[in-house]
Amino acid sequence: MPLADVDTPALILDLDAFEGNLAHMSDAVRGRPVRLRPHAKSHKCAEIALRQVAAGAVGVCCQKVGEAEVLVAGGVEDVLIANEIVGEDKLARLAALARKAKLAVCADAAENVAGLDAAAARAGVRLDVFVEVNVGADRCGVEPGAPALALARTIAVCEHLRFAGLQAYHGGAQHLRSVAERRGAIGRAVGMVQATRTLIERSGIACATVTGAGTGSFPLELASGAYDELQPGSYIFMDADYNRNEFDATWPRFEQSLFVWTTVMSRPAPARAVVDAGLKASSVDSGMPQVWKLPGVDYVNASDEHGVLSIAADARAPDLGAKLLLVPGHCDPTVNLYDWYVCVRRGVVEALWPVSARGALR
Amino acid sequence: MPLADVDTPALILDLDAFEGNLAHMSDAVRGRPVRLRPHAKSHKCAEIALRQVAAGAVGVCCQKVGEAEVLVAGGVEDVLIANEIVGEDKLARLAALARKAKLAVCADAAENVAGLDAAAARAGVRLDVFVEVNVGADRCGVEPGAPALALARTIAVCEHLRFAGLQAYHGGAQHLRSVAERRGAIGRAVGMVQATRTLIERSGIACATVTGAGTGSFPLELASGAYDELQPGSYIFMDADYNRNEFDATWPRFEQSLFVWTTVMSRPAPARAVVDAGLKASSVDSGMPQVWKLPGVDYVNASDEHGVLSIAADARAPDLGAKLLLVPGHCDPTVNLYDWYVCVRRGVVEALWPVSARGALR
Repeated sequence: MPLADVDTPALILDLDAFEGNLAHMSDAVRGRPVRLRPHAKSHKCAEIALRQVAAGAVGVCCQKVGEAEVLVAGGVEDVLIANEIVGEDKLARLAALARKAKLAVCADAAENVAGLDAAAARAGVRLDVFVEVNVGADRCGVEPGAPALALARTIAVCEHLRFAGLQAYHGGAQHLRSVAERRGAIGRAVGMVQATRTLIERSGIACATVTGAGTGSFPLELASGAYDELQPGSYIFMDADYNRNEFDATWPRFEQSLFVWTTVMSRPAPARAVVDAGLKASSVDSGMPQVWKLPGVDYVNASDEHGVLSIAADARAPDLGAKLLLVPGHCDPTVNLYDWYVCVRRGVVEALWPVSARGALR
Repeated sequence: MPLADVDTPALILDLDAFEGNLAHMSDAVRGRPVRLRPHAKSHKCAEIALRQVAAGAVGVCCQKVGEAEVLVAGGVEDVLIANEIVGEDKLARLAALARKAKLAVCADAAENVAGLDAAAARAGVRLDVFVEVNVGADRCGVEPGAPALALARTIAVCEHLRFAGLQAYHGGAQHLRSVAERRGAIGRAVGMVQATRTLIERSGIACATVTGAGTGSFPLELASGAYDELQPGSYIFMDADYNRNEFDATWPRFEQSLFVWTTVMSRPAPARAVVDAGLKASSVDSGMPQVWKLPGVDYVNASDEHGVLSIAADARAPDLGAKLLLVPGHCDPTVNLYDWYVCVRRGVVEALWPVSARGALR
């Protein structure tokens, strides 16, 4: 089926661009002493995770037990839940899943470590646990240095846990627009990570792996030598927010592969068109979607099921019924609105991949 | 099961508040020459639509053919798609559905009317079509007056269509904060509606129904005498954005019935807690969610799977593992993130209702 015949709104994956992005990332880490563990929270799709592994990733990370369950059921053998998991139900599911695949999780509180140990004991497994360190994002994580060491010790003495290393992701740095700002933020994070790892290892506790980094910063963590694993997620898709970042000319250049396919459902005025993709078709938390390759036509306002386009006087105005590609403002929550990727190569539908972990919130 | 045992994040419907809201709306229209046609885009749930009908509504409206299909399959017999439907596939589905239920749709372009007529002819049905009039929202809709008359004429001469009246919803007025501003905006809309209806009827075309209004404005449309049907949606749930509106003391007072149930997954600092409900659990397009009845604790930042709470020095700080209720910033796109309503009465789960039209974008 040609893309032109696909009904809208639909989530489109351009396979040439997607495969190019996979290759760019493989090239970036090839021969370097670092493993790639892409973040599956962006795609929520075992088909994509398996392709990342085939392209050299050691496994993936994700944020929710429900995502890990779907990925393992889909054949992924090595999953890091790069997040704290709290609550008895979830801990029991996490421990049960560790019987089926290599599984690791993060912690930032002794109370949570005790819960992980008890759940692992009940399930008869030994769980890898990373200490999440706050390297500047001020979200989860213990502070670097002594608090991280204390929690590493707590984990190391648990019979059913293994201290696996440090989770050190700087979420706040990913969308700092200039390379210089990101370089500064990641430089500070690297300093905290190195000091914390040294402190832990001098205390006689092995710190096997430091894991972190995202699409906006990973060349900096890679160059630092302080990270053993990189966790970029959005690089396979890109989005309007990441496309606003300044990228260093020496960094891999990822192409836009993810789109929302939409129809012009109303042309009420010369300077206005309305498309059928609104808030339920493209997340606006990081700004409006952008109209792909239609200069002078801007998506200016989203309501539940409508997107209003502003059309400049000299722009080529889309007709009623025309179909357009939108670049989502933020890829991750946009993907989570859909059940399927419509995978397209040079204008022809080649496959449908399920967003199997869509809505996997728990 | 007590609410306390429900795992998070989950979408909670407080049944007492929900039923109270249904009753308040029934009371508001009882004995008035106006019909209630609540908007099902807010809830996407046949169980809720049937309760609205049982409480006196003539039917519901929705925005997508896919929503209408789910509602009709769930037993709803009268559905207005309060929106333009463009594209052959959708028109064929719309016409096919009109064989199973009383169905109506809107149009704002002659080209679209021709498509509707052709689809209705092929399906062997006669479709009710409303002319959508732009009464100030500057989204879809023909301009009031002569353009609306011209389109009504176009519909009236189509063999397989019936001109049903005017769709006149002022979306832009719903969240004007002061009653005075909303009164002004709806007053102007009412003037346009009355003039347009008069023009059409003087041309010899019956204009049976004027339909429109939302939760933020419906008492004004009701009082105007210009509307035959009201389309409020959010009143059954309410949300943080509607709760910021000023309401006239004489208007029905709707209670918050919709919540996101979330767990404190990290307590990294005295002034900071992190909950497990982020952008994929509560839409932030109309502002952050609010923490329910926990003074001094504010949801200040959302990322994909995390919500950061700021805790004032004198506030009762929630413990790690505590579960909290959040009031969504915007109810409609939040509901669309979930597969189920967990319906709770006085702290006990009473039912699970499916969000059957979740993701029904087409």
